[in-house]
Amino acid sequence: MAANGISAREQEFVRSGERLDDLYRNGYMIIQNPDKFCFGIDAVLLAGFAKVNKDEVALDLGTGTGIIPILLEAKTDGDQFVGLEIQKAMAEMAQRSVKYNFLDHKIYIQQGDLKEIDTIFKPDSFDVVTSNPPYISQGAGKLNDVSAKAIAKHEIRCKLKDVIWAAARMLRMGGRFYMVHRVHRIPDIICLAREYSMEVKNMRLVHSYVDSEPNLVLVEMVKGGKPGLKILKPLVVYTEDNKYTQEVNDIYYK
Amino acid sequence: MAANGISAREQEFVRSGERLDDLYRNGYMIIQNPDKFCFGIDAVLLAGFAKVNKDEVALDLGTGTGIIPILLEAKTDGDQFVGLEIQKAMAEMAQRSVKYNFLDHKIYIQQGDLKEIDTIFKPDSFDVVTSNPPYISQGAGKLNDVSAKAIAKHEIRCKLKDVIWAAARMLRMGGRFYMVHRVHRIPDIICLAREYSMEVKNMRLVHSYVDSEPNLVLVEMVKGGKPGLKILKPLVVYTEDNKYTQEVNDIYYK
Repeated sequence: MAANGISAREQEFVRSGERLDDLYRNGYMIIQNPDKFCFGIDAVLLAGFAKVNKDEVALDLGTGTGIIPILLEAKTDGDQFVGLEIQKAMAEMAQRSVKYNFLDHKIYIQQGDLKEIDTIFKPDSFDVVTSNPPYISQGAGKLNDVSAKAIAKHEIRCKLKDVIWAAARMLRMGGRFYMVHRVHRIPDIICLAREYSMEVKNMRLVHSYVDSEPNLVLVEMVKGGKPGLKILKPLVVYTEDNKYTQEVNDIYYK
Repeated sequence: MAANGISAREQEFVRSGERLDDLYRNGYMIIQNPDKFCFGIDAVLLAGFAKVNKDEVALDLGTGTGIIPILLEAKTDGDQFVGLEIQKAMAEMAQRSVKYNFLDHKIYIQQGDLKEIDTIFKPDSFDVVTSNPPYISQGAGKLNDVSAKAIAKHEIRCKLKDVIWAAARMLRMGGRFYMVHRVHRIPDIICLAREYSMEVKNMRLVHSYVDSEPNLVLVEMVKGGKPGLKILKPLVVYTEDNKYTQEVNDIYYK
């Protein structure tokens, strides 16, 4: 530990403008740049919702900081985790987080565009795909803004359709795609899934409070799955006195 | 009132095997035959969910006992209510309930097949369509059973696709279709709606208990509506001690 409280390791890995955040899981840390994009509760809930079984290989589309592969490595028995990120600087930062946590043998970050995923990875080769994609429709945001933050939040570099297409292309038959999105896009998600021979099998709605409307949805779709949806019990984020519910606390810290 | 406790009016309207049930609303009663089909909570919740504004005309597809037009007449400011029912004996019984309640000027029951609705009513002529259709897929039930009960519960005489087609055909642009169905059919409902130029705009999930998975869904779709779904706060049927919640009590009796 240096005199200023920053370890030599932190000095080696963390660049100017970045910070190192504790994930409270396996001692893992993540490098983030608050001027670009910091992960939110949606990524954490998605990592809590996705299932990656023993020996399975998982791909995260638009991985950003790498938060989802890192959390899934900690939480599941999956064998290998791959993150695809279009932004070079973001992918490089995610790769540093992987190295910082000594996870090079389990997690691989690839820079690239999911719209050309055919040329990057072998189709039908993943057991699981995850994504916390940009939520805001093209046209709804400022089209000229191509900052890292805008790219993470708005459908500038990829649309929902591209994400679902890429997931379907990469999954083996029977493979699962886990996504978090806003509730208002559910019809688009369901119909696009069918367009690419996937079926939404499970959804979990995320409510801020027990009696409030849900704003987020966690979706599980299966490539080649038969029709038949199950909606799981509501996932409530806050108690009446504005603390995390026990379940959300467990997803974060248990 | 006759000596046996049955009024002359009841004797005039109610046939052997039938009974007269109180709807606890405007003093309305409904004739039902327990050997055929009695309405359930789903019809009541649908009538509580559907909105029929002043001067609007509403059509109920597969009206059965006529429960939905009768409840909507009591609960809303709608002008005219029409019920279409394929089964002759059921349609005749529904008509008797209408007459019993002196509602001939507001409610009209028509016997006919919704698959031929073009030849029965003028297309694009209703402001609101409602339906509590058979829930169980063809093939899942006993195909040879064409009892009144089977027809009400199984997709024997009409499929979900037929119901949504008929609703789209009958609604004016901007008109609303309210339906209750099982949760597992939500993807079919959403995609069929789009097939017929309707968009699911609002859904409310019905949970037996506050922390249980929802089993029913109340759906509002709009003909020519733009994409963008809202899921309303959960509708919970029972309290922890197995009584109706205040909201469900209000839907039934208030």
